[in-house]
Amino acid sequence: MKHIIEEYGYKALQYASSRGVPELINNIVAFMYRMRGLKTLPENVLITAGSQQALDLITRLFVNPGEVVIVEEPSYILALHVLRLRGAKVVGVAIDRHGLRIDLLETTIKKLRREGEKIKLVYTMPLFQNPTGVSMSFERRKYLLELSEEHDLLIVEDDAYAFLGFDDSMIPALASEDQFGRVIYVSTFSKILSPGLRVGYLIAQEDVITKLSVVKQVIDLGSSTLSQLIAAKAIEKNVIERNIAYIRKLYRVKKDLMVEALDEMLPKGIWRSDPGGGFYVWVKLNRNIDTEDILNLSNKRGVLFTPGKRFCVNQVPCKDAMRLSFSNPPENSIRVGIQILGDILRCKVR
Amino acid sequence: MKHIIEEYGYKALQYASSRGVPELINNIVAFMYRMRGLKTLPENVLITAGSQQALDLITRLFVNPGEVVIVEEPSYILALHVLRLRGAKVVGVAIDRHGLRIDLLETTIKKLRREGEKIKLVYTMPLFQNPTGVSMSFERRKYLLELSEEHDLLIVEDDAYAFLGFDDSMIPALASEDQFGRVIYVSTFSKILSPGLRVGYLIAQEDVITKLSVVKQVIDLGSSTLSQLIAAKAIEKNVIERNIAYIRKLYRVKKDLMVEALDEMLPKGIWRSDPGGGFYVWVKLNRNIDTEDILNLSNKRGVLFTPGKRFCVNQVPCKDAMRLSFSNPPENSIRVGIQILGDILRCKVR
Repeated sequence: MKHIIEEYGYKALQYASSRGVPELINNIVAFMYRMRGLKTLPENVLITAGSQQALDLITRLFVNPGEVVIVEEPSYILALHVLRLRGAKVVGVAIDRHGLRIDLLETTIKKLRREGEKIKLVYTMPLFQNPTGVSMSFERRKYLLELSEEHDLLIVEDDAYAFLGFDDSMIPALASEDQFGRVIYVSTFSKILSPGLRVGYLIAQEDVITKLSVVKQVIDLGSSTLSQLIAAKAIEKNVIERNIAYIRKLYRVKKDLMVEALDEMLPKGIWRSDPGGGFYVWVKLNRNIDTEDILNLSNKRGVLFTPGKRFCVNQVPCKDAMRLSFSNPPENSIRVGIQILGDILRCKVR
Repeated sequence: MKHIIEEYGYKALQYASSRGVPELINNIVAFMYRMRGLKTLPENVLITAGSQQALDLITRLFVNPGEVVIVEEPSYILALHVLRLRGAKVVGVAIDRHGLRIDLLETTIKKLRREGEKIKLVYTMPLFQNPTGVSMSFERRKYLLELSEEHDLLIVEDDAYAFLGFDDSMIPALASEDQFGRVIYVSTFSKILSPGLRVGYLIAQEDVITKLSVVKQVIDLGSSTLSQLIAAKAIEKNVIERNIAYIRKLYRVKKDLMVEALDEMLPKGIWRSDPGGGFYVWVKLNRNIDTEDILNLSNKRGVLFTPGKRFCVNQVPCKDAMRLSFSNPPENSIRVGIQILGDILRCKVR
């Protein structure tokens, strides 16, 4: 912050362009190429108030009330809320260990088309999906891009957790493979620098960026200049890349602790995901149990999680699921928490 | 910023509540009472990304596409854009030297009701209105509140320029006189501290705040924590009140320079407003001239203004008007600018 005030003076406190501060946009272009294998240009970038606002902007521009948006089942809770706020018809398509079931996506699209529905977007998190931590296979990614071209759909790629892989391989962004110009890429500094700055970004075709930046101008006159300059400086001074290397190790240790504890202490017959990155493990009890009831019990013993229904459009198959987060609890409490959860589940699951 | 990092550490970079940082909310409550005569409570305050986002939130919650919102004619350009983005039917009611013509407002409401229209909001800037700088008389303020109760309407009071009065009198916020709970009060730190922080606020009945904060959560997960803490600290350390005292004098000098130059150098028969505060003078040529054409000429000679049509729903009566801003140009260029404008107008207006 000191560097920024010295360098920019009062300009750091003035309005910025509604597209975003040029320094940040330029640094994101370079950062995307290094970190996500995504070649882009400054005119294809729009700065947003976190990726959350990016989802809202896209929805307002492309989706009219009653039109269909397809999401993964389960999906990011607040993406579902943004879509509902707009009055979209949200349709879920199941995922498995290899990500979104593209075969089911195709039959769903064809069925909806036959029924006369207007399908606007497919919202996906190809890498380290929230809440499951699974990633889409290369075959499915390719097929998804082809489907979007065939059926004239836009894909929204939410890449918020992409920097948090547990091994050193870099799987490029889906957008980097998009030859059809159908992917709108969305990401954020919330997981790798600071959520409180509220800085995210959106990468798309230039005409899409132009339209979205008009909406951005009208709804909030652009994001905080100071926050944007902090993010720009943090890229420039390598703060973010150093931090990514650090937190990847940190979260991997926590993930391993949680996964080990789950395998050891949970009753048999329960399924868990094997996250390749991110903050979460998805657990499915495979029983007729509503995890909202489990939460009531575990909460009294100091263990919180998010019940599965909240992530799903079709809530029935998610009723017995739960999202466990290993990012926030300290290492030494993860095992204790899973033990408590195991105790509660053993009484319920027979 | 140094104080904030010392005091809050990493918390200054974490998510805040979607309602806003408690320190800022508490300081706004005290600030509102001192500066705007408005008694309120923390539970009645919501922090927004500038007053612009406050207008967007209100519109999304209260106005469905096709429903009517009444605005002053002329009104704030980006309020019109927010309403149009929502698909609202925007109806203008003329203002004069004493602010919104409440008599015309009443006939307009009755006429719209007879036609079966749903009227949701009246959007007004009672003090130092943008673009005219005029203020609403006390009689009209009282009548407006009664009308809102009688016809079951909400009033949105945009108070962005209220701190920038040219004399020392303090005219309380309209919301301070509202016995019916019908006023939603909106203001910002953009004119008195920094626009680049993007911090504004909204004061309303608690149930309204609760609903709006859910929308705020869904669309951007709350405003920048750092920006909010800076605004909170600037109130606490009296930075804002000292700055207000300073800029009121600064803008008054500039306003006087502009008004003198206008009276001296513009052709006869032209009307100008007599702003009591704010940034702007409204000039009406009273001729069949489109000021967009004047702008094309003056722009080439280094003088910019905003043509009247952009502020109006019914653009015909505003075609020959222009908003001149004295806030940004340095003192010694105001007279030069008005002279250039006078020269151009003398060739057009005979």
